Amino acid sequence: MTNSRIESFHPPQRTLMGPGPSDVNPRILEALSRPTIGHLDPEFISMMDEVKDLLRYAFQTNNEVTMPISAPGSAGMETCFTNLVEPGDKVIICRNGVFGSRMLENVERCGGEAIMVDDPWGRAVDLEKVEAALKTNPDVRILAFVHAETSTGAISDAQAITKLAHDNDCITIVDTVTSLGGVPVKVDEWELDAVYSGTQKCLSCIPGLSPVTFNDRAMEKIKNRKTKCQSWFLDVSLMLGYWDGGGKRAYHHTAPINPLYGLHEALVLLHDEGLENAWARHRLHHNALKAGFEALGLELVVPEAERLPQLNAVSIPDGVEDAVVRKQLLDAYNLEIGAGLGESAGKLWRIGLMGYSAKRDNVLYCLSALEAILGDLGSSTPRGKAVEAASGVYKKQ
Amino acid sequence: MTNSRIESFHPPQRTLMGPGPSDVNPRILEALSRPTIGHLDPEFISMMDEVKDLLRYAFQTNNEVTMPISAPGSAGMETCFTNLVEPGDKVIICRNGVFGSRMLENVERCGGEAIMVDDPWGRAVDLEKVEAALKTNPDVRILAFVHAETSTGAISDAQAITKLAHDNDCITIVDTVTSLGGVPVKVDEWELDAVYSGTQKCLSCIPGLSPVTFNDRAMEKIKNRKTKCQSWFLDVSLMLGYWDGGGKRAYHHTAPINPLYGLHEALVLLHDEGLENAWARHRLHHNALKAGFEALGLELVVPEAERLPQLNAVSIPDGVEDAVVRKQLLDAYNLEIGAGLGESAGKLWRIGLMGYSAKRDNVLYCLSALEAILGDLGSSTPRGKAVEAASGVYKKQ
Repeated sequence: MTNSRIESFHPPQRTLMGPGPSDVNPRILEALSRPTIGHLDPEFISMMDEVKDLLRYAFQTNNEVTMPISAPGSAGMETCFTNLVEPGDKVIICRNGVFGSRMLENVERCGGEAIMVDDPWGRAVDLEKVEAALKTNPDVRILAFVHAETSTGAISDAQAITKLAHDNDCITIVDTVTSLGGVPVKVDEWELDAVYSGTQKCLSCIPGLSPVTFNDRAMEKIKNRKTKCQSWFLDVSLMLGYWDGGGKRAYHHTAPINPLYGLHEALVLLHDEGLENAWARHRLHHNALKAGFEALGLELVVPEAERLPQLNAVSIPDGVEDAVVRKQLLDAYNLEIGAGLGESAGKLWRIGLMGYSAKRDNVLYCLSALEAILGDLGSSTPRGKAVEAASGVYKKQ
Repeated sequence: MTNSRIESFHPPQRTLMGPGPSDVNPRILEALSRPTIGHLDPEFISMMDEVKDLLRYAFQTNNEVTMPISAPGSAGMETCFTNLVEPGDKVIICRNGVFGSRMLENVERCGGEAIMVDDPWGRAVDLEKVEAALKTNPDVRILAFVHAETSTGAISDAQAITKLAHDNDCITIVDTVTSLGGVPVKVDEWELDAVYSGTQKCLSCIPGLSPVTFNDRAMEKIKNRKTKCQSWFLDVSLMLGYWDGGGKRAYHHTAPINPLYGLHEALVLLHDEGLENAWARHRLHHNALKAGFEALGLELVVPEAERLPQLNAVSIPDGVEDAVVRKQLLDAYNLEIGAGLGESAGKLWRIGLMGYSAKRDNVLYCLSALEAILGDLGSSTPRGKAVEAASGVYKKQ
């Protein structure tokens, strides 16, 4: 235990262009510092109702059961699995990156049996493989997949996968951690059943909360459980007494008051901008960044049709050392980009344009910095070409 | 889903004297709004190391495994049970309030069998009953209890209970949510094995994080598990790779960056004040509040020797309606006090003096407000008596 004096922590001002957290809108940072009130205060309860409504907008759903879990995205994932999977249940998991493996861990720890449908990292989930797995496993009732793989930047067709699942009497668990707010996520139109997300990606809020939404099919399965949910903290039926209790809100846990102020503000910002505008903004800045990467000779890993605009995986050029470049970006430019995860560690960079980070300043700054560093390392791209290419995209707009 | 415009949320400025959250020091609120950085940023990792060190100071321990869980106190509780209890394990739970019942839920959901040792609400855990339960259940290896019951304000002898447990080959799980920072919690000296706490009580931080500490006995039990921990998110062995990974920190989940800035600041404040001074401060303001309550004819529920200074349960006087008084305090005075929980709902108020709330302003304000409201409801106490009695305590200091 410490005896020496420790000072207050004053973080540096970074530009966050990794896989999340993304840059946080200053309005959200300010909201975090508003006075703390009690978690059963009527004013707080009104705010909780607004958060639920705003989340329904973000998810494009009318699901009654829509709320933020008081813990990060991985707890949102666990909320879905621990409430829906009972011991002995078989679950099909589509795996095309790191988070499919985490789903496998979740199923096994719930006493379920996972049937893996594997696709290459950096590619979308293959619908034919999904259909084949459903046909050969008619006793499966749950299918789980990642809409937008944070480890690679690949997007899968959530609507089509869910249709296949429903045609085979399965409900879906869908990870929208990196997609929500950046590309369309239409929970009702696509009939997604149990969906979780995170706050630190395209909602540009701080990490630490996980929005979830469950439709009637998912709630029906939860209500008909034969066993109690193995987690008390993540038991949806208990959380509902707290978040949906109306006049008689029952104490479950103490909500993280100030982070919820931040989420409320983030959702107000998204609602004011409008989802369609937010999606278009992510697309525009992705196009500019992509033009810059092409000028720099940096290759995008994911095929165009399966590419997420808000998370850009690029191959690290031959002879360039991953850690050296990222360290220089951080030390000299205060700019964070993401490393590869798992099997792609050292092979690619993940460059995020999420939420408040999806803006022209960040695109041009990132390209300038990369251009300078790669130029010093011997890249043949003439200085200024990358920024020029990106600027061209903005001019055409 | 909402179509109507929702405004930014601006909470009222309350005085928080319930069972938590307590008033948050403005320095902590400001810390929350500092710029977000990445959770794998070297600067953030240095801060994590300081948080661990400062937590060791708060817990008075040298335990290597000391860190905040990225979720509220109830997740801290679940972390202890889900890592230590395996299916079939018998666990003795001492129950003298609401949180003992929550421990029971936790044990059952881990597949364990709980043996309850019940004491009346508002009283400390009875050591003789604990010893008897240990003797009649020699196959038990875990004993769990609440050091400071938030539902009643009773404190139990954590050191003596743990000694009995150790004498009978049991390790302890100890809830210090309401005690940490307000009264002595000496993890090493008392040999407590697995301990969890919260941030929104005597640390005067926002809710949403749960500090835990595990000694070697507890870690030994975890390392020798026959089954995997049923929670992926709360698996201590996985969290260690993230919090104690040294140079090779492994990604587990995304830490809630800004709330951790707040906790860091709260712990710096506690360290600068000194634990002994913090304990003395809570005691002083409790004495002043108590003198005021006596002048008002309000009876403290918990016997003096078992009474927690930072959480004062008083009986609601005959003929006075609980909800009416609390609503008036909130509406006219912006003052929050706590209601009774569970079987004591409607019978008592819980008035907290925790962390930053433990100060003279709050004591005198609360007494003035109660005096005015109870006076209007026909109390016979002459106006000014309660504040005078409290002021007398401060003068004697």
